[in-house]
Amino acid sequence: MLSDARHELDGVFHPRSIAVVGASSDKRKSGAKWVLGLKAAGYRGILYPVSSGGGSIGGMEVFTSLSAIPGDVECVIASIPARSALKLVDECIAKGVRVVQFFTAGFSETRSADGDALERAMIERARSAGLRIIGPNCIGSFCPKSGISLGPSPLGKTGSPGHVSFVSQSGGIAAKLVEYGIARNMRFAKGVSVGNSIDLDASDFLRYYANDDDTHVIGAYLEGTRNGSRLFTALCEATAVKPTVIWKGGRTEAGAEAARSHTGSLASSAPIWSAMLRQAGAIEASNLEELSDCLLLLQQLGPIRSRGVSIVGGLADGGGGISVSGSDACADNGIPVPLLHPETRQKLVELIGEVGSILRNPVDVSPAQFRGLETLYEAIRIVASDPSSDLLIIQEDVDIMHSFLGVPETRDVNAFLRELPRHIGKPLVIVLPGGSTEHHRVEAEEQLLDAGIPVFPTMARAARAIALVTQRRS
Amino acid sequence: MLSDARHELDGVFHPRSIAVVGASSDKRKSGAKWVLGLKAAGYRGILYPVSSGGGSIGGMEVFTSLSAIPGDVECVIASIPARSALKLVDECIAKGVRVVQFFTAGFSETRSADGDALERAMIERARSAGLRIIGPNCIGSFCPKSGISLGPSPLGKTGSPGHVSFVSQSGGIAAKLVEYGIARNMRFAKGVSVGNSIDLDASDFLRYYANDDDTHVIGAYLEGTRNGSRLFTALCEATAVKPTVIWKGGRTEAGAEAARSHTGSLASSAPIWSAMLRQAGAIEASNLEELSDCLLLLQQLGPIRSRGVSIVGGLADGGGGISVSGSDACADNGIPVPLLHPETRQKLVELIGEVGSILRNPVDVSPAQFRGLETLYEAIRIVASDPSSDLLIIQEDVDIMHSFLGVPETRDVNAFLRELPRHIGKPLVIVLPGGSTEHHRVEAEEQLLDAGIPVFPTMARAARAIALVTQRRS
Repeated sequence: MLSDARHELDGVFHPRSIAVVGASSDKRKSGAKWVLGLKAAGYRGILYPVSSGGGSIGGMEVFTSLSAIPGDVECVIASIPARSALKLVDECIAKGVRVVQFFTAGFSETRSADGDALERAMIERARSAGLRIIGPNCIGSFCPKSGISLGPSPLGKTGSPGHVSFVSQSGGIAAKLVEYGIARNMRFAKGVSVGNSIDLDASDFLRYYANDDDTHVIGAYLEGTRNGSRLFTALCEATAVKPTVIWKGGRTEAGAEAARSHTGSLASSAPIWSAMLRQAGAIEASNLEELSDCLLLLQQLGPIRSRGVSIVGGLADGGGGISVSGSDACADNGIPVPLLHPETRQKLVELIGEVGSILRNPVDVSPAQFRGLETLYEAIRIVASDPSSDLLIIQEDVDIMHSFLGVPETRDVNAFLRELPRHIGKPLVIVLPGGSTEHHRVEAEEQLLDAGIPVFPTMARAARAIALVTQRRS
Repeated sequence: MLSDARHELDGVFHPRSIAVVGASSDKRKSGAKWVLGLKAAGYRGILYPVSSGGGSIGGMEVFTSLSAIPGDVECVIASIPARSALKLVDECIAKGVRVVQFFTAGFSETRSADGDALERAMIERARSAGLRIIGPNCIGSFCPKSGISLGPSPLGKTGSPGHVSFVSQSGGIAAKLVEYGIARNMRFAKGVSVGNSIDLDASDFLRYYANDDDTHVIGAYLEGTRNGSRLFTALCEATAVKPTVIWKGGRTEAGAEAARSHTGSLASSAPIWSAMLRQAGAIEASNLEELSDCLLLLQQLGPIRSRGVSIVGGLADGGGGISVSGSDACADNGIPVPLLHPETRQKLVELIGEVGSILRNPVDVSPAQFRGLETLYEAIRIVASDPSSDLLIIQEDVDIMHSFLGVPETRDVNAFLRELPRHIGKPLVIVLPGGSTEHHRVEAEEQLLDAGIPVFPTMARAARAIALVTQRRS
């Protein structure tokens, strides 16, 4: 038996040993992929593949049963048919396992009486023995620091460890949040896909994350809950100490119907959810992009506040329309774009003149570049130092800059932007739209993200994320 | 003098000769960049750089004045200070020029009496002599077929000629629409940035495009108009024959204020614009992404109608949450997602079973891949043949597919998707989100776009574009 000194959910994220049950030597099967993924991710504990047929996977012996494993098993990942689930619960109890994750689907989400009954039997036996269950119908846990990758992927991608943690009722959304996150230099502490949540549910993980030192920012994808007041309490606990972003899937009637087939969730109406989230002090996202954008903004800048933003709409040429649409995007989201202080404006007029510029806020400083990059930088510094705003948004169109400035000059500007936040004493957000020079754009994005700057693909998404994060109640 | 047999605006897009005035041999200056760009774009007419200092650019003689040019000049691009603008108008008239574009800024958009007066004087002289003016404060015309690139960029990018034409009051938006369009395989017929529009304005170009055989789809970025009823009439003419997408910048008070500094436009209120656009049968976009998305959808599929869509949410694994959010995105935009016909559902159950699937619509067919790609393809074909919908949306997450299927298999699936529309008799839209394998995603996107399939980065953007295009009035 394992020591009881740890929190029972530590076994989910930092297990000393994992058995993957249903891990035959057929590498095309999910169980085998899970084992190979954990190995590739560099899992730091002891890994035991288990399958009745025995054999080996990736140089590891496959044990024929849980009981055949010589040492303790803290966590079990089950990739087995639903009909074997109850028997595995018994075996887990016999082995002293702390927590079992069921990848297995075919339970209440199929809307069958059999599925419901099976779930009830599993939970009854587990509860009486102190075994905790994640799922079924889920892809389980994720913890880069422990070398635990998410779900049955042999690639075992985790990205670098960090401080963003999440819980998701959808395995696919969890996986996509990680893949998209890795692409944006989002660094995760912990994550979990809870599926049908017959035992451990989103509320349990929200409370755990609230008390987890590695977690600074919390995100969740939820489709429904069986216990609204418990979720509300857990959310309040979380938001009291950490910014918490919730995306409720199945907001619409059509979406709610799909959610019922997906995780067996009985979804409540969108207005009730929104009111509950607002009252709990959570940030409400309405799709993957908003969830990911808010988490990225919070990872990069922490829990920011803002009374108003300055927008720089053009770095190379023709930033006028971008300035106009930046204003629209901010106004759509209730973000004040205060006029520049008269002194700031005067400095800009002296530096670059009024012709072809927009020197109010948004600011189109693009004519400055005709006098050289140093003039452009000085114009940006002047805008950044304006006392009317406490956040700076700059749109950087790499393809336009290539056309007007050249490739080396575009790299120079990007280097200048990476250093800028250190000198201006206010946070910087970069809008870096897609365009005709994708590999250059990706390079610029990686560098900016590395420098701790949040980057968004459109002004609308930047404004939305800033509004959601800065306008939360608590 | 040139023959009068052509439409006067043919001189904008198919000029037999262009003089760039203000094209000194200093390659850092805009005039020189314009000349080099036209050369790089392969302009098919005769190109004359003009600058009082003479010299040469890119192997071309720089003429010291317009009058020093030996042949006819149909179109002039002016990159000169505002103070020289009136003199150039006189020279253009003397030379028999058809149309002059002023890159030059510093007119009414600076809100000065001088700027207003100068514009009035220019237009007075030009009108009496039959000279047409584009701008000032604009980056002029664009026509890939004629080898005319947009604005003063030495790279001269045009992309392949096609059938999308646009007019923009912002040069920056026009340039970005082209750069972003080229990245998405959007192929343009014609484009023009009209800036302050003291003579030729958006209405003129909308009417021209309505009658232009090369133009099948029309887009516009507008900030305001001096003549609303004329614009309404032009819009009606355009929408009667071609789908027309209008993005009105400066929708909000903050945006309208920025627009006034930008192009001197007095913007009307957003509801008035929306009502006018709706009544004219135009599609109203509210940012660059929506404008570009609608144009791409129309380029790829033509003017589609839809009674309902089928959504395939998962190709590799975990498409449940994506199905839920796909439903939400469609419902947000008023797009019906009708339940599958019982027969279709029965076929799917027979093929892949219910466990882990969502077989209603959206459809998560991901478990099919566990039985091999052929089963996955068959499941998609069954969904595609469902009679309840007339448009199919499939989300393809390349990074998730890499994790679960492998790289070659992901390429196979993409090849299958490219062929699919030929066999199913209804249009296909692909949602291809960003993620951890950007260069593979870009490759897949290019192939799909080449195959005539519209591709969007998020379900929300796909649903929005489909709704805007299919729900237009006329």
